[in-house]
Amino acid sequence: MNKNEILVVLTDKWNDWESSYVMAVANSFSDYKVKTITSGDGEKESMGGLKAKVDCKIDTYDNFDDLAIVIIPGGLSWEENDYDDIACFIKKVIDRKIPVAAICGGSLFLCKHGFLNDVKHTGDCIELFKEQKKYSGEKLYVEAQVVADQGIITANETAAVEFAYNIFKLLKLDTDEEIEEWYDTFKNGAVK
Amino acid sequence: MNKNEILVVLTDKWNDWESSYVMAVANSFSDYKVKTITSGDGEKESMGGLKAKVDCKIDTYDNFDDLAIVIIPGGLSWEENDYDDIACFIKKVIDRKIPVAAICGGSLFLCKHGFLNDVKHTGDCIELFKEQKKYSGEKLYVEAQVVADQGIITANETAAVEFAYNIFKLLKLDTDEEIEEWYDTFKNGAVK
Repeated sequence: MNKNEILVVLTDKWNDWESSYVMAVANSFSDYKVKTITSGDGEKESMGGLKAKVDCKIDTYDNFDDLAIVIIPGGLSWEENDYDDIACFIKKVIDRKIPVAAICGGSLFLCKHGFLNDVKHTGDCIELFKEQKKYSGEKLYVEAQVVADQGIITANETAAVEFAYNIFKLLKLDTDEEIEEWYDTFKNGAVK
Repeated sequence: MNKNEILVVLTDKWNDWESSYVMAVANSFSDYKVKTITSGDGEKESMGGLKAKVDCKIDTYDNFDDLAIVIIPGGLSWEENDYDDIACFIKKVIDRKIPVAAICGGSLFLCKHGFLNDVKHTGDCIELFKEQKKYSGEKLYVEAQVVADQGIITANETAAVEFAYNIFKLLKLDTDEEIEEWYDTFKNGAVK
């Protein structure tokens, strides 16, 4: 496999659970390798107090040839920050037709910067944007736990398992059967 | 609140999702504070490739007066390691009647060291132990996603939300109503 790098964008107080399933499964049980990326200094603390050393910096990253997808988890700093530098990076990713998957605050960020203008999408955080009358995507907004359209996946904060499932399908991480079985087990539990 | 410290035990290739909900919610939306603890050096990498700087070391920790609970997520290093130093630490915790919550490989670890001998418990990883005929806890084993008994919580790898819910109840993290609502939303999704 050539394109085997998965990047996860970490910001201050990033959400621990939203990208946790996809990171663990992809990095430990497939040929994909997960790396974290951020702007600013190379250390970020999660909502849960986890202090992470980040692998890559947004302004020097140039491994697009190997890049399979960029994942943007939510967290507590997306609302008050525009993160123009991250938007500039995501534009480069989308221009190269590399998929992007965003959940909760990550979806709000994509929405803010116009990346969802022509793409079917969801995202519970976008409600905030609607209230502030800054949102103009009503036509393409879908009331769902997760939406995948044109290489962009968006999801609600309560949909971490569905989010992972959609990313696994898009990346063809495993056979369809195995992915369906994983989803069923994690959605419904091993003991009913 | 006096006892407001939550410790999460990180080991090599700890599981990203299993303690993610409880860490993020407790640390960001309650008076509890999450710290990570480990033996050996102060850096651990998760199954998902996250490189964490750990807050506390097991051999020098002495803040038991503030300690509310110890959480032991699973991961890929519990099967081949005994982690006697972590067991020694957990004995001190249990002797002080401080709760312990373990999921997947964390439950296997508690089982290995005899901490579940007199406690009702579950744990999908314990199946491995049964196969190896090292398991003698059949009488108290419960076929369930999560079991709480005598201050010890055990859970399956597919039960991260139920695991968090049981810890929130034990810690009285919020009102019963709020905790039930959280559980319903995260178990069943915001959009049905």
